[in-house]
Amino acid sequence: MSDILLRNLRPMGGAALDMRIKAGKIAEIAPSLQADDLPVEECKGAIAIPGLVEAHTHLDKTVMGLGWYENAVGTDLRAMIDNERAERHRLGMDPHRQSMRHALALVGAGCTHARSHVDIDTEHGLAILEGVLATKDALQGIIDIEIVAFPQSGLLVRPGTLELLDEALASGADLVGGLDPSGMDRDPKGHLDAIFGLAETHGKGVDIHLHEAGTLGAFSLELIMERTRALGMQGRVAVSHAFCLGMNDWHATEALIAGLAECDIAILTTGAPSREVPQVKRLHAAGVRLGVGCDGVRDTWSPLNRPDMIDRTRIIAMRNNLRSDADLALALDICSAGGARVMGLQGYGLEVGCMADLTLLDAETLAEGAISDAPRPLVLKAGRVTARNGAALRKAP
Amino acid sequence: MSDILLRNLRPMGGAALDMRIKAGKIAEIAPSLQADDLPVEECKGAIAIPGLVEAHTHLDKTVMGLGWYENAVGTDLRAMIDNERAERHRLGMDPHRQSMRHALALVGAGCTHARSHVDIDTEHGLAILEGVLATKDALQGIIDIEIVAFPQSGLLVRPGTLELLDEALASGADLVGGLDPSGMDRDPKGHLDAIFGLAETHGKGVDIHLHEAGTLGAFSLELIMERTRALGMQGRVAVSHAFCLGMNDWHATEALIAGLAECDIAILTTGAPSREVPQVKRLHAAGVRLGVGCDGVRDTWSPLNRPDMIDRTRIIAMRNNLRSDADLALALDICSAGGARVMGLQGYGLEVGCMADLTLLDAETLAEGAISDAPRPLVLKAGRVTARNGAALRKAP
Repeated sequence: MSDILLRNLRPMGGAALDMRIKAGKIAEIAPSLQADDLPVEECKGAIAIPGLVEAHTHLDKTVMGLGWYENAVGTDLRAMIDNERAERHRLGMDPHRQSMRHALALVGAGCTHARSHVDIDTEHGLAILEGVLATKDALQGIIDIEIVAFPQSGLLVRPGTLELLDEALASGADLVGGLDPSGMDRDPKGHLDAIFGLAETHGKGVDIHLHEAGTLGAFSLELIMERTRALGMQGRVAVSHAFCLGMNDWHATEALIAGLAECDIAILTTGAPSREVPQVKRLHAAGVRLGVGCDGVRDTWSPLNRPDMIDRTRIIAMRNNLRSDADLALALDICSAGGARVMGLQGYGLEVGCMADLTLLDAETLAEGAISDAPRPLVLKAGRVTARNGAALRKAP
Repeated sequence: MSDILLRNLRPMGGAALDMRIKAGKIAEIAPSLQADDLPVEECKGAIAIPGLVEAHTHLDKTVMGLGWYENAVGTDLRAMIDNERAERHRLGMDPHRQSMRHALALVGAGCTHARSHVDIDTEHGLAILEGVLATKDALQGIIDIEIVAFPQSGLLVRPGTLELLDEALASGADLVGGLDPSGMDRDPKGHLDAIFGLAETHGKGVDIHLHEAGTLGAFSLELIMERTRALGMQGRVAVSHAFCLGMNDWHATEALIAGLAECDIAILTTGAPSREVPQVKRLHAAGVRLGVGCDGVRDTWSPLNRPDMIDRTRIIAMRNNLRSDADLALALDICSAGGARVMGLQGYGLEVGCMADLTLLDAETLAEGAISDAPRPLVLKAGRVTARNGAALRKAP
């Protein structure tokens, strides 16, 4: 919780102003503020936005720092999952060390918050969760990490996983995750009853990976909505990926989107360029809360993603044909405030009274900042400088 | 045409070797070559690939160096075209200066060859062509530029354009272009007869922008194949974008792809993430020549593209779900040798006897080099160093 005076920044790309931060919160925004005895940071006309929010990732999966991972596994979902479980041992992927590397890369690129799905399976038990919890703890005041206990290898198809999820939720996980109730677990009713049962027991939110496309995914979404309504969990459920919302059936998707809005179920997308994906402008217009993530970064699944929500804003823009300045500003909003809305962050924003979680962008306009690969000049968490020129101040192990 | 000894480079990511270049060509590749009196360049184990090939762009359209262009025009094709014609005047977009900026950015990122479509319309006449021809001339020995005379604003719908295209082909344009015979020109037979007529008259190749999706685009492709066969133009026709090949009708696209292979018609793709696109693995397997381009870069159409064929390789990989090392190597091949095959480049490659058009990649493996944003350490054209650490040695105006 720091006090600092930021000199000559442009909130959301507007006119250059100064910002006084007191006790970690934005206290005043105005031209030519007196520094008094505050430390002063000259921002050189950089654009200020609230901290970027990585709303869907897997911090412990990265192989960063372990040399190039030669991928020969192909693109089958189950093959990639099985390959990863085995490779974690062979590569010596310590979950704490790897998640520290990933999380600090996110900080360097301007993130102040992240939601990470953490694998819970009968092979690793809670070991991965413990590593990421240690990272969450170590990075307090640098980046806030929300943890989803995630049955990556299947729930009902791997007896013992349900009990481990239950333990994970008692041991610090913030939400319960799920995965392709039909495609992976072969029992949509059983899978979702189990997930929502855990959520009810522990009073936690839900975030379900739904890769199922087309009508199969649509059926799963309906089951998720039914349980959200029955348990009164409106506002506490999210669905990640939701490729089915990208299917080419306007009437069917229109009904699904109306249901999501009514149930206040959030959608998290990566804008995956090789898949059908939810159209962000359409969901935004329908009032569906929407966040974005980079997903796993340089892991055994793929080397293509980067730990950078500005890189991801560009991908969201490309995937959704967002070109105008107004549309790029929307994409950036979804990659920052959108994630905050999904995660229910309090005091998020650039207004006086908000937490001073800020990212500066080196750009002429907000639209340029939304997609430029220029390193972020400065990142602050609760008024404390956490990164400069694209690199976190805290060194990764 | 230079002589040089490159020390300690890894051709295609293999073992470290030395390379002797004589009179601009690769003369010898072996361990520990004697320098004799050649200048020596230490490559520090960087990966060497043949020069990257930008096979579909618009060099004169960029607004680089003119400040941020605020885009409020939206995504309608005709609106974007009309907007650009007007903005060229308002922004003072000198075609020579702008194409120099764009081309030298490509050089900095490792390109040795580019094919550029140059607008020919009744408003600008041949002025844009003249500017790009001056750039082509100025950058001889740095980057080879192939020019397509391109009726961006329509051909039959803008009387006078056909005569200008004819003049352009007599004045140095290398190929004749076309654009959406139905969608833009409203007369597919008339448009294609005119384009192929010009090609026949001038003995030049053809490269047609085909944004038409689905069955409309499929019909246009059929008309293009009919004319290619009738005029014996196999191997001299390319279709850019060809979104129709991405349509969800396997039998229809299978027939089109077989026809393309038989007519030896090349496909040029940008991997546009917001559109249906040709699947590169499928076309490659069918024996269709395939090249890639970044398209226009930071222009009045969109700020999302970058003048970097490695950035584009990553986009191609993301759009086509290419994740394994083998698939990433294929994507890189299409973005380099693929373009060379489309453009019919002689002496292209890394073998002894080839032109020493090389790009070094700072990466551990070829797959990493294919998608890494690390600046290219060194670029050579005919053995002459043209760029270092991501920047062309020749300064842009």
